[in-house]
Amino acid sequence: MDSFTNEFNPPPRLLMGAGPSNIHPRVLSAMTTSLLGHMDPDFLQVLDDVQAMLRIAFKTSNEVTWPVSATGTGGMEAALVNVLEPGDTILICENGYFANRLGEIALRCGANVYKVQFEPGTAVTPEQVEAEISKHDSVKAIAMVHAETSTGAVSQILPIANVAHDHGALLIVDAVTSFGGIELRIDDWEVDVCYSGTQKCLACPPGLSPITFSPRAMQVLENRNRPTHSFYFDMTQLRSYFQMRAYHHTAPINQIYALREGLRLVVEEGIENRWARHQVVGKAFQAGIEAMGLGLYVKNPNDRLPNLTSVEVPDSVNASSVRKFLLEERNIEFSSGLGAVAEKVWRVGLMGYNANPSNVFTALSALEDALSNQSFELPVGASLAAARRVFSESN
Amino acid sequence: MDSFTNEFNPPPRLLMGAGPSNIHPRVLSAMTTSLLGHMDPDFLQVLDDVQAMLRIAFKTSNEVTWPVSATGTGGMEAALVNVLEPGDTILICENGYFANRLGEIALRCGANVYKVQFEPGTAVTPEQVEAEISKHDSVKAIAMVHAETSTGAVSQILPIANVAHDHGALLIVDAVTSFGGIELRIDDWEVDVCYSGTQKCLACPPGLSPITFSPRAMQVLENRNRPTHSFYFDMTQLRSYFQMRAYHHTAPINQIYALREGLRLVVEEGIENRWARHQVVGKAFQAGIEAMGLGLYVKNPNDRLPNLTSVEVPDSVNASSVRKFLLEERNIEFSSGLGAVAEKVWRVGLMGYNANPSNVFTALSALEDALSNQSFELPVGASLAAARRVFSESN
Repeated sequence: MDSFTNEFNPPPRLLMGAGPSNIHPRVLSAMTTSLLGHMDPDFLQVLDDVQAMLRIAFKTSNEVTWPVSATGTGGMEAALVNVLEPGDTILICENGYFANRLGEIALRCGANVYKVQFEPGTAVTPEQVEAEISKHDSVKAIAMVHAETSTGAVSQILPIANVAHDHGALLIVDAVTSFGGIELRIDDWEVDVCYSGTQKCLACPPGLSPITFSPRAMQVLENRNRPTHSFYFDMTQLRSYFQMRAYHHTAPINQIYALREGLRLVVEEGIENRWARHQVVGKAFQAGIEAMGLGLYVKNPNDRLPNLTSVEVPDSVNASSVRKFLLEERNIEFSSGLGAVAEKVWRVGLMGYNANPSNVFTALSALEDALSNQSFELPVGASLAAARRVFSESN
Repeated sequence: MDSFTNEFNPPPRLLMGAGPSNIHPRVLSAMTTSLLGHMDPDFLQVLDDVQAMLRIAFKTSNEVTWPVSATGTGGMEAALVNVLEPGDTILICENGYFANRLGEIALRCGANVYKVQFEPGTAVTPEQVEAEISKHDSVKAIAMVHAETSTGAVSQILPIANVAHDHGALLIVDAVTSFGGIELRIDDWEVDVCYSGTQKCLACPPGLSPITFSPRAMQVLENRNRPTHSFYFDMTQLRSYFQMRAYHHTAPINQIYALREGLRLVVEEGIENRWARHQVVGKAFQAGIEAMGLGLYVKNPNDRLPNLTSVEVPDSVNASSVRKFLLEERNIEFSSGLGAVAEKVWRVGLMGYNANPSNVFTALSALEDALSNQSFELPVGASLAAARRVFSESN
């Protein structure tokens, strides 16, 4: 037998990169319960349960709310291919890698794409978006990323929604890294289309993209001149399965079991409590990082995500060596930067099941060890003390 | 708490419908081993392993051979959106529901779609395809379904490949229900694009679509005038991840673990042995059905799939009541027919882990009981004896 057929024993990693994060043990168990067919009455009930709990987690009453059978990038594609037709105009609020990807997919839809540029590591702000949208006759949609995974910046949604709706445009929001971790209110903030992923703050396996469309967005879909070029992501076709129980494709049953359990955990904890947990844990980690003498890539404290932190790599330190030490010696994954900042930052996630005090102290002390190995001088004990202070103040 | 948050305890079904089939226990275990990040060196090795074993199972040396992060319908979309550009011409060999879907997706690609129609329940034959292709100046591709899941008919691939290549066209093959169950030789039969699903003869969870592109097909992709409208399914983009280790999307890690284990089982058994197993089990089941006095929907024995059988429902029998009895009293799933024959046939799968003698006898005797409940007269003991005869003759 060749080596590719060897038994596989993956090392037990603590996944503190940009995602995936570790899966909750209850979710893993749920994923392996007895398989049902995708048309089994018992499984159709699961689909109803998942839709009901997704509405709670998204804080929406949108009827069209379910998991698309693809990863977060698939959800991004589903959002855009349903809304856009060739010749439509879309504005992209671009403050990082994933906003850039929104633009690329919109171009492939045949749309006219205009970008409002923001410095990486900053938030999207409404003034520039208002200035840009005023230049165009008819803008069908504005797209933005709530939590930019490439930088760790969070943007306020409601001000951008107001700009969009003042100009008769829809607002499309990427919530891949925010959903289930930080405050997100689809109905209150008047978001028209929002998609996420399961492998970040929901602590489920990667492979599904929860998505929601407002009635206003569904109206746009129903008024299309021609069907979207994607059959797989066509929300009107998917509705035939998720709500009318007609076959469309074979749902990824086990992943939907997993998502059901992940959402049960959200409901048990309470979504607001979950947001608060991510806030405290993230602030504690960031306090520890700063006390260590390191900088945070997002300069404005108001723009910092708690659940994903970009840490600046000191000039004297080799970013890859630190990541290698953490992975190989401590079984801890940090992500590198994306694109131009690949070797300039580490991206550290504290998401879902992983967002707890133990992991904050584990990560800070492991990073201290890695930096000491590179002769980077640290104030002894300051980092953990700073994190501890945040936790005790939050009680 | 609302009922949608109840603990979920699915009944232990024997999945003998058109798919999904039951997951092999080793595959279930593999799916829950420690999660790795999608850029972890240990996980990149898993991607290599899966590609190597897929090549064995597909009997191909195609470099571009990996699992697309979507279900079989996603694989169908990936096949078509990469090959077709607006204005291209494609011929669809239509002998059932899934061939019809190929046509629908091709239309959404902006292609000129011509169909060669065959009676449902019959195989695709080369003479009519040759006659149709000769009418057109330049046909980019012919598409066909190897194992038509809606009817249980199998078509010979090589004769259609010859027609395609004689006219400079690519051959696209849907192998969702055949891959890993019946003979399929990508290189020997000169298939250019082939996609499948994991939830049928591979005994893995639904959610991935193994796909392979020949060098000739990749040449067509590289010569496109513009990129495909799908970013998610763009094979040139996916190659950057599967072979060049650059981020494209977060792979569905657990499903790829599952597929790796499913493919290990294929390699351990030997792909030819696996084909032989499905043949014997399917023939035994079909012999039992005929001995029961029921008809097979596919009339020509040479056109019958062993792993998916469409059984004709006798006039005096209520098709849905029988399925309900099997599901609720015996925990066995049969599928209804699709489309016009919904209440005229049952579709019975014996795929992957489920393709074994025990399930043949379980299903035949359960069906006998269901028919007896409806006062359908059966020759006592004939069905099981006929199946037993096939098994003993195969030894």
